[in-house]
Amino acid sequence: MNLERWLPLAGWLRGYGRDTFLRDAIAAVIVTLMLVPQALAYAMLAGLPPEVGLYASMLPLVLYALLGTSATLAVGPVAVASLMTAAALGSIAEAGTPEYVAGALVLAALSGLILVGMGILRLGFLANFLSHPVISGFVTASGILIAASQLRHIFGVEASGHNLVQLVPALWQGMDNISGLTLLIGGGAWLYLVLCRRHLRTGLQKLGLPGQAPDLMAKAAPVSAVIVTTLLAWGFNLKAQGVELVGKVPSGLPSLAMPSLDGELWSTLLPAAVLISLVGFVESVSVAQTLAAKRRQRIDPNQELIALGVANIGAGVSGGSPVSGGFSRSVVNFDAGAVTPLAGALTALGIALSTLLLTTPLAFLPKATLAATIIVAVGTLIDLPAIRRTWAYSRVDGVAMVATLALTLFHGVESGILTGVALSLGLHLYRTSQPHSAVVGRVPGTEHFRNVERHNVETDRHLALLRVDESLYFANARYLEDTVLELVARRPELRDLVLTCQAVNIIDASALESLEAINSRLSDAGVRLHLAEVKGPVMDRLKNSDLPHELSGRIFLSTYEAWQALGGDGGAGKSV
Amino acid sequence: MNLERWLPLAGWLRGYGRDTFLRDAIAAVIVTLMLVPQALAYAMLAGLPPEVGLYASMLPLVLYALLGTSATLAVGPVAVASLMTAAALGSIAEAGTPEYVAGALVLAALSGLILVGMGILRLGFLANFLSHPVISGFVTASGILIAASQLRHIFGVEASGHNLVQLVPALWQGMDNISGLTLLIGGGAWLYLVLCRRHLRTGLQKLGLPGQAPDLMAKAAPVSAVIVTTLLAWGFNLKAQGVELVGKVPSGLPSLAMPSLDGELWSTLLPAAVLISLVGFVESVSVAQTLAAKRRQRIDPNQELIALGVANIGAGVSGGSPVSGGFSRSVVNFDAGAVTPLAGALTALGIALSTLLLTTPLAFLPKATLAATIIVAVGTLIDLPAIRRTWAYSRVDGVAMVATLALTLFHGVESGILTGVALSLGLHLYRTSQPHSAVVGRVPGTEHFRNVERHNVETDRHLALLRVDESLYFANARYLEDTVLELVARRPELRDLVLTCQAVNIIDASALESLEAINSRLSDAGVRLHLAEVKGPVMDRLKNSDLPHELSGRIFLSTYEAWQALGGDGGAGKSV
Repeated sequence: MNLERWLPLAGWLRGYGRDTFLRDAIAAVIVTLMLVPQALAYAMLAGLPPEVGLYASMLPLVLYALLGTSATLAVGPVAVASLMTAAALGSIAEAGTPEYVAGALVLAALSGLILVGMGILRLGFLANFLSHPVISGFVTASGILIAASQLRHIFGVEASGHNLVQLVPALWQGMDNISGLTLLIGGGAWLYLVLCRRHLRTGLQKLGLPGQAPDLMAKAAPVSAVIVTTLLAWGFNLKAQGVELVGKVPSGLPSLAMPSLDGELWSTLLPAAVLISLVGFVESVSVAQTLAAKRRQRIDPNQELIALGVANIGAGVSGGSPVSGGFSRSVVNFDAGAVTPLAGALTALGIALSTLLLTTPLAFLPKATLAATIIVAVGTLIDLPAIRRTWAYSRVDGVAMVATLALTLFHGVESGILTGVALSLGLHLYRTSQPHSAVVGRVPGTEHFRNVERHNVETDRHLALLRVDESLYFANARYLEDTVLELVARRPELRDLVLTCQAVNIIDASALESLEAINSRLSDAGVRLHLAEVKGPVMDRLKNSDLPHELSGRIFLSTYEAWQALGGDGGAGKSV
Repeated sequence: MNLERWLPLAGWLRGYGRDTFLRDAIAAVIVTLMLVPQALAYAMLAGLPPEVGLYASMLPLVLYALLGTSATLAVGPVAVASLMTAAALGSIAEAGTPEYVAGALVLAALSGLILVGMGILRLGFLANFLSHPVISGFVTASGILIAASQLRHIFGVEASGHNLVQLVPALWQGMDNISGLTLLIGGGAWLYLVLCRRHLRTGLQKLGLPGQAPDLMAKAAPVSAVIVTTLLAWGFNLKAQGVELVGKVPSGLPSLAMPSLDGELWSTLLPAAVLISLVGFVESVSVAQTLAAKRRQRIDPNQELIALGVANIGAGVSGGSPVSGGFSRSVVNFDAGAVTPLAGALTALGIALSTLLLTTPLAFLPKATLAATIIVAVGTLIDLPAIRRTWAYSRVDGVAMVATLALTLFHGVESGILTGVALSLGLHLYRTSQPHSAVVGRVPGTEHFRNVERHNVETDRHLALLRVDESLYFANARYLEDTVLELVARRPELRDLVLTCQAVNIIDASALESLEAINSRLSDAGVRLHLAEVKGPVMDRLKNSDLPHELSGRIFLSTYEAWQALGGDGGAGKSV
């Protein structure tokens, strides 16, 4: 049982049979067909040689299969992590240089160590700092940036940059030297892929293909685009006519080697590695959870940290770049019928075979085809309606989302996500720092108490019942003091004030001090402070403080009890 | 009425009479006696010439009197702000140089602008980021650092540093060149002040002095120490014997001048100015609120921001250093009977007269006396029992407090407070990211529902009622998903799941997406999701989302209603 927790493989390998293997193998073939062009494309996006993408699709997948808790998560190079890799490495070296490639290995190893460390310390909750609107704004902006960065391959021009402010003018300038033939290949591939995505599935269904076959065939469309354009490039010697091709990919498997141990390089890449790890982890876990839930299975987020971490370390020592769980590949893997993580290991085998056998033809693959593949793939990342939806639901979340989106687009991925995190924290604190509170009165004839401003209730001019609709902690402790003192200053006849705490889940040390301050200030002003409906865990904690002894009033179980004891019924000041 | 809000003076000046004036004037005389040595001492602590402390006690006090809402807050140079000023200026220039003094003016003006800006934008809530344990740990550490930094004046040695790691070895080395006469003066003054603080008040009370006179006389003890040691230094020409004196203080009032407009200097000092503003504001407001509450008066925190800001700008243009409300001086002002802010303006007049008349004798004041005054004064800042108290109440708050204290002592004021703020935010999020939740069942024969693990309640194997004791927001959205999916994976017979939301004060966009994800995942698994006891404001917001339409189940007013509708009563799966 304990072994299973650390090595989930031990669990699913028992009872593994021929039937399960067949299903895993079929899924692996389909995912391999999808992953070969993606691996090359994401390496290109990250500014890395094509083989790096292939290497990142071998050892990491095997390691994840050993340690991961998701049966269907397809690990490997993904679009957003590749964009972030390019942004991080762009500041340390020129794309394509050996230093740049060495940086990618360090980034993968570093991300891996961070993830494993978080897993061992059970720090998965840190991923929660990335709120949904921030992630969503970030992913949409990344999708737009990725598409924009690939346009140069479609047009066959030179243009680079890590945000739209750099990219757009560079593209504009490059338009003078457009390559017509490249545009024909890239534009054609793009149009073909869009049409496949829109119509192929329904078309094949109409032709009567059974089950999920039309769906999977539509998703494998990039393979046909790759084959056709590669043949064209080879047959018509397009390279001589200015069409950029992938070029020589070293055949054979990667060799294992420690990444560079340059301390300065590691510390320079640390912030980027933290962000890549967190974003990758959040995306992987949410994909894995979605798919697991469909089969009523569970994944263990802390074990996922370790599995993804070890996979990244694997990428770092086998010539790869940072990896995480990819959304579309995992869905394909799931739909194709993968039953266990072995499907992932078999995919790695497929990639290894491709690397051994296909490097000669792949050298003729036009970069424009890969760019078209990427542009169509990231279309699923871009979710503009989410902005309107989030804005309508909550201004605060909308602001965080738009700020993340705008900063990522116009300044870059790192400042975008960091600003988003800081904003969502700040805005959350702001929101809880001014909690809703209401003076309540008794609904005549009942034990219920409601807001005096909304309902026709009984009150007493010597008694105020104040309900606070928020946990009391440092961000709102002083606001509570303000609210109470304001109330007391406004009602000179007040003798008793009851704080009703049914919505108070925490009273931290700051709020405790505020309550003590309120208690002594009210005493000075001749008003007693009482508490009512304090929850069990909160009360347990209060018993460790001096408040219960120092309190000028009492602690009542219910608001009604306080009302009765403090003369609300028949008291001199009663009024409806 | 509106005029009064921006110029509180307009309010209290109406009906101002001879009697009120007399009371304000008496308070002003007493506070002036206390402030003259303090102004010199805090200037010395900040590494500034003595006149800077006096200048900071003139114009700022008048400006605060015009704009402040507290009747009794005594504004001027204070210990903690002086320590922070020294730490900030230490990195830009040598203490005592013209650049150093120019930096102090910029720091005051910058703090003033920040405070006014926060006041206009009503950002007073930002001060809430400083939790009580962080402030308390910081103030205690500052008190220890201040006392340690003043020991060199008592021993008459050279030693400087901004944390104990620098100060202690420097003091130790300096011990070779101790000045016996200085130690006699400093040690004597310290002993005298300690004895006065401990015994003078009760002694005078026993002698039969009426009312608060003994108390106020005990607080004015530093004045007698100043007079006696000044006379000794003058009579025995102590300067010739190696006792450091205050030296020449320019006579006359400060001239108005713009502080340096060097952009680089401003941006270098910005982070320090932010911290000085926030700490000063928090301390001022808490003192002002404490005193106001005793007379059932109110202060307006946002107007205080403006008043303190303008006072600091005043310090910046009249040769002063950053100012804020001082705790002990304000208490003396209050006890001495100050009725309106005019007492502050009259104190400024007293300081101005002192500056005109007393500079010749003050030149003979030994620095050791001032150091003794400071060391005794900061004794009130150091609150070590608070550590034990906070730790006993809450580990999380205790960790934040100890970390702030230790980092301030051993690394410096800025890293101390920043770490404290980051820690208290992080720990708060951690605490709310794993909220308490409970599966509840019906207490037989009632409409009450309690935790199934703690009470003997009715349950139904097809129905789970889950109560979440926390607002749902990004930090715990994924935890909620985990909790729900875990529950569903564990109970294969489940058909309906009800989330009971009486403790949910907010559902932010992240939590909304999590609920939508939970809803669709449960649908995939054949379980309906319901909500119960959703609060009014939360429901209003949910109506702007798609959740109510997409929800596979219903939204019930009460848990009992859900229980009845979903077959808890008499359902096939019922059991007690």
